Amino acid sequence: MKDETILSGMQPTGALHIGNLEGALKNWVNLQNDYNMYCCIVDWHALTESYKDTSVLKERIYQVAVDFLAAGLDPEKCAIFIQSNVKEHAELHLIFSMLTTVPTLTRLPTYADKKEDLGLDSYGFLGYPVLQAADICVYNADKVPVGKDQEKHIWLAADLAKRFNGLYGETLREPQVLLTKIPLIPGTDGRKMSKSLDNHIMILDTEEATAKKLKRMFTDPDKLRKDDPGHPEVCPVFALHNVYSDNPNETIAPPCRTGELGCVDCKAKLIINLNNSLGPIREKRVVIENNKDYIWDVLNSGATRARERAASVMESVRSAMKMEYF
Amino acid sequence: MKDETILSGMQPTGALHIGNLEGALKNWVNLQNDYNMYCCIVDWHALTESYKDTSVLKERIYQVAVDFLAAGLDPEKCAIFIQSNVKEHAELHLIFSMLTTVPTLTRLPTYADKKEDLGLDSYGFLGYPVLQAADICVYNADKVPVGKDQEKHIWLAADLAKRFNGLYGETLREPQVLLTKIPLIPGTDGRKMSKSLDNHIMILDTEEATAKKLKRMFTDPDKLRKDDPGHPEVCPVFALHNVYSDNPNETIAPPCRTGELGCVDCKAKLIINLNNSLGPIREKRVVIENNKDYIWDVLNSGATRARERAASVMESVRSAMKMEYF
Repeated sequence: MKDETILSGMQPTGALHIGNLEGALKNWVNLQNDYNMYCCIVDWHALTESYKDTSVLKERIYQVAVDFLAAGLDPEKCAIFIQSNVKEHAELHLIFSMLTTVPTLTRLPTYADKKEDLGLDSYGFLGYPVLQAADICVYNADKVPVGKDQEKHIWLAADLAKRFNGLYGETLREPQVLLTKIPLIPGTDGRKMSKSLDNHIMILDTEEATAKKLKRMFTDPDKLRKDDPGHPEVCPVFALHNVYSDNPNETIAPPCRTGELGCVDCKAKLIINLNNSLGPIREKRVVIENNKDYIWDVLNSGATRARERAASVMESVRSAMKMEYF
Repeated sequence: MKDETILSGMQPTGALHIGNLEGALKNWVNLQNDYNMYCCIVDWHALTESYKDTSVLKERIYQVAVDFLAAGLDPEKCAIFIQSNVKEHAELHLIFSMLTTVPTLTRLPTYADKKEDLGLDSYGFLGYPVLQAADICVYNADKVPVGKDQEKHIWLAADLAKRFNGLYGETLREPQVLLTKIPLIPGTDGRKMSKSLDNHIMILDTEEATAKKLKRMFTDPDKLRKDDPGHPEVCPVFALHNVYSDNPNETIAPPCRTGELGCVDCKAKLIINLNNSLGPIREKRVVIENNKDYIWDVLNSGATRARERAASVMESVRSAMKMEYF
């Protein structure tokens, strides 16, 4: 029995790209050995942006689960499940909604930014971090592995747990940020890798498709000809070398700077290294992708395990509030 | 099997006063014969104002249930239950939260008024009408018996049902207001009867306690002496005669106006009539109040029946949204 509990969440965006893999998933695969881990595919959260077309959710969830398993999450070690299959999230969300103020939520930077960008003004979008707090605290999670950008949301969850404990007695753990150093994975156009920008390399891409995308990838704009001196520190291809190639500061950067290594050859090396790195995951993906029964079984039994823990935490929540009537 | 379904809700304020009885409860007792009825004691709603002291909730719920049964709600005819015992309310609340905007909620007059009066700014308080909408729609209720002041909230529920149907296909009924003509029941100080103003007459008051309160009740301020001419239209005691005495416009108003009937005698008549009216309810109350097992059994089996219906509605909700994954 592991001592500490971790909650990780990912939106059901469909098949994952290598930004998801390197930024989150690989970290989770390591953590599952040391922690009691809950990996939640957060379909209710997805409604904030995509409530207008929910018919895509099922397939997207499925593809995320396939990538989770292909990347090495082990359903024996961690519970992989769908948020809406554990109603306790909604119950704690409702209770937490009484313990946080509207100004606290409107001041969170992610709210202001996204509200502007996406034109979202739903009540549920404002409450996104309240639901996140419930996601975490309903498992009494000790830690949440996130990047810097999500830190404030975990603090809100810790605040809510603390406020709950102050009002009703020591019940919930105050979750801590397990800061994940997220490697820089630029998209093929140099911007942040994102499906919506169509600049992404998928886990499920074939080696050929990967090669094709990388061959067209942006490089240092000042290196126009093969033997122009390059600037690896601004080159998105070099950023990927940093993740997928051994010692790129010794093998790639120097000949790039001198003009000895041209972009075509540089990309050829990356294509080999990146495809090699993804090889085992892709092989596993191909094997399991069509095994629908297996994937849904994993999600079903994951939900059962998640519900057990969530139900027990909610019992203690109701008991602390003296709202256990029978 | 009755055709139409009604949802009624009441906050667990503890033992009820005659304003609750005449304004809502007696109406429900009539409606239970013609409708498939769900009577919900809304403890989650109570958290908006009293999250700081939840330890009082259990006893308050109990006393409300006792008054419900004493007044004639029949657990064979309607499901009497506690909101937080039916988790489906929280689930639909979360889904509805994605379908309504923050400006829609802040513009509701009850929000603006109460926010000011009570200094409430919690996220959950802003979402009060969203939870109300879920309370109603989770039973696919056709009608909701409320007074004018709650009309806008029912309209919001109807809007949400309509919006849901528009997005995901015909699923939820759009609830209608069943406007209840609420008799004027002033408190003993002439203001609205309310526990917080301590101007209330309880169902559970003894005849003596009732007499004592009514004897001190405010009357027409211009009728200082017994034989001064009175103005029944401004007199709170006369407002109660309108509810509890036969033909007060013939028996009470004329002699009051001429100065023939003094306030002491007028109140003596009211005391008799009001106590007579409440007599049978009070007798029943005394009998059942200490039968704890019976009361909790009613609430428990009411919750079971409510859950059955709510679970089936939520199945159709999830199915319409294509969020039934297994």
